Amino acid sequence: MRETPCLVIDVTKMNANIKMMADAVRQRGVTLRPHIKTHKTPSIAKAQLDAVAVGITVAKVSEAEVMAAHGIDNIFIAYPLIAASKIERAVKLSRQIQLVVGVDSDEGARRLSEVAGRLGHELQVRLEIDTGLQRTGIPYDQAVALASRIHTLPHLKLTGIFTFRGALLDGKPTMDLERAGREEGELMVRLAESMRAEGIPIADVSVGSSPTGLYAAQVQGVTEVRPGTYVFNDRMQAAFGVCSLEDCAGVIEATVVSRPSEHYAVIDGGSKTFATDVQPGTNPLQLKGFGHILEAPDAVLERLSEEHGVIRLEPHHMLKVGDRVRIIPNHICSTLNLHNHFYFIDGEQSEKVPVLARGMLE
Amino acid sequence: MRETPCLVIDVTKMNANIKMMADAVRQRGVTLRPHIKTHKTPSIAKAQLDAVAVGITVAKVSEAEVMAAHGIDNIFIAYPLIAASKIERAVKLSRQIQLVVGVDSDEGARRLSEVAGRLGHELQVRLEIDTGLQRTGIPYDQAVALASRIHTLPHLKLTGIFTFRGALLDGKPTMDLERAGREEGELMVRLAESMRAEGIPIADVSVGSSPTGLYAAQVQGVTEVRPGTYVFNDRMQAAFGVCSLEDCAGVIEATVVSRPSEHYAVIDGGSKTFATDVQPGTNPLQLKGFGHILEAPDAVLERLSEEHGVIRLEPHHMLKVGDRVRIIPNHICSTLNLHNHFYFIDGEQSEKVPVLARGMLE
Repeated sequence: MRETPCLVIDVTKMNANIKMMADAVRQRGVTLRPHIKTHKTPSIAKAQLDAVAVGITVAKVSEAEVMAAHGIDNIFIAYPLIAASKIERAVKLSRQIQLVVGVDSDEGARRLSEVAGRLGHELQVRLEIDTGLQRTGIPYDQAVALASRIHTLPHLKLTGIFTFRGALLDGKPTMDLERAGREEGELMVRLAESMRAEGIPIADVSVGSSPTGLYAAQVQGVTEVRPGTYVFNDRMQAAFGVCSLEDCAGVIEATVVSRPSEHYAVIDGGSKTFATDVQPGTNPLQLKGFGHILEAPDAVLERLSEEHGVIRLEPHHMLKVGDRVRIIPNHICSTLNLHNHFYFIDGEQSEKVPVLARGMLE
Repeated sequence: MRETPCLVIDVTKMNANIKMMADAVRQRGVTLRPHIKTHKTPSIAKAQLDAVAVGITVAKVSEAEVMAAHGIDNIFIAYPLIAASKIERAVKLSRQIQLVVGVDSDEGARRLSEVAGRLGHELQVRLEIDTGLQRTGIPYDQAVALASRIHTLPHLKLTGIFTFRGALLDGKPTMDLERAGREEGELMVRLAESMRAEGIPIADVSVGSSPTGLYAAQVQGVTEVRPGTYVFNDRMQAAFGVCSLEDCAGVIEATVVSRPSEHYAVIDGGSKTFATDVQPGTNPLQLKGFGHILEAPDAVLERLSEEHGVIRLEPHHMLKVGDRVRIIPNHICSTLNLHNHFYFIDGEQSEKVPVLARGMLE
């Protein structure tokens, strides 16, 4: 029996999710470059590649290094690399595999160009565009001018643009994923055309995300989507309506360790087990609690401390000390990042799998 | 130069915090059994033991195993052990070191007794008391009766009671730490006396926490405190007034990777780097943002996604792409749990230290 708390991945559901996305991108005629932030595990990246993906997306050079060491040879680091040491590592990697790196500023481009030149190499880059999230990404109205300047820099080859917007309209969270995705796609296609009109050969027009990516991909001219979460799905995706709770491949198994009152039970997993980045009651999803409890769907995982999860119960709930519960977490990506390993379950089979690219920060 | 984002621990500040607590418990005449959740690192536990601590506190059998493997021989697992496999591991450990385990229910006690008996061993236990937090712990008014029943069980030796309440009064978050701590201590001492009147030889009366522990320890009859966070301190402790920001030994070093607008900067650390369990704007602390930025104290680390931290700036802030910032996190314990290693800095010296008991869940 597995010790709790632990993260369990249902292989059948995962494979169905991988196939669903593969079918969807084929039907839309775009390429798929999944973000590995959700699983951080080379063997799952390979399953995505086997299904249809042309390559993977990562956020960190260290993640790219782990994935390349396990045989993955087409990687996009969708993040601005600023430190010379990181750019040197990227250059080294790009001599071994097909690598593209993100850029979103003059200073970032200057650094990439300088280090690549010093090492006698050319780096392929994509320009990140802010389509409304106000995170990284050059503001939309400054993007053509920046692309023109990057295009003239030596040792860089600007071949595409990319963005991540997520479920956002007019800067606010939305449940209208179709409109959000379509807008994201249209903004990017229009921008690529403006750049091409300036003589910049933009080939790749790449968009996010699990909730919105397939809507964006319906826009003619979008070439690539980079969803991550779809591989497992989670409670957030189900609340968005892009999957059902039954499609969620990842659950936390936990044990009831205390039943001090008829009103609550305590499980052996808290904020070290469940991520707290998607908070209950926040827009637009208004999730109740930190996860969906399969054995008590109307009970609420209300409070987490580091090692305790407090489940608010109705008196009729029969959970008792020693019972196991399975809980779909609000956000599987950040939850998986807390776990050194997970268990693949496939019928009666259970296999312990290390999360090889977990906690890669540097 | 260290790659960012990373967690850096100032050795001088850490040692001063260790000494402050050692002096304080000596002055109060109580023993110190620090919770290692804050550092998860055997070498730091040893520094605490060298200063004055009689042993350490952990939450997981796996943490106890890591600490014991590194020579620590007096450990309290302050958590109810329920699964037979975990109790077996605890029994095994208690043949090698001085081990005490928590218990808070009849069912938990029955399981401990059964497994210890089967393995021909006696386990030393402490009963956890709920003094208001409503987490684990037997409700206060049922504690004497449960203690009497545990006292009669074979293979268990009940030697103490323990609680964790934190900054709470009448079930609500409070800034009145002195009253909260004193109440916690008084409740526990009164309860120990009631148990002794029933013939149960309660020796250890053990209380939390970094904010309230030293107040509780002033109550005559409290024998032990189990603070954790004091070893590093953090922004939450400073907001409680139990330390200053200058006493915070742990900071995140991050790099500005994007400055798309005069109103915000983006750093290379998000919710994989900073814990999100202590949310901005929550009672009683009302912290602004996810950390205190030493280089821009009035700027707000307002939004985190997994790899991005968005800092809201006034236009006068001069942060530019490539700048390094140092940020005191809201909650150092859960933040450290995200990091595979940290850096000890001591003057010009920098040493990379693995977090050996990080992510111990099972």
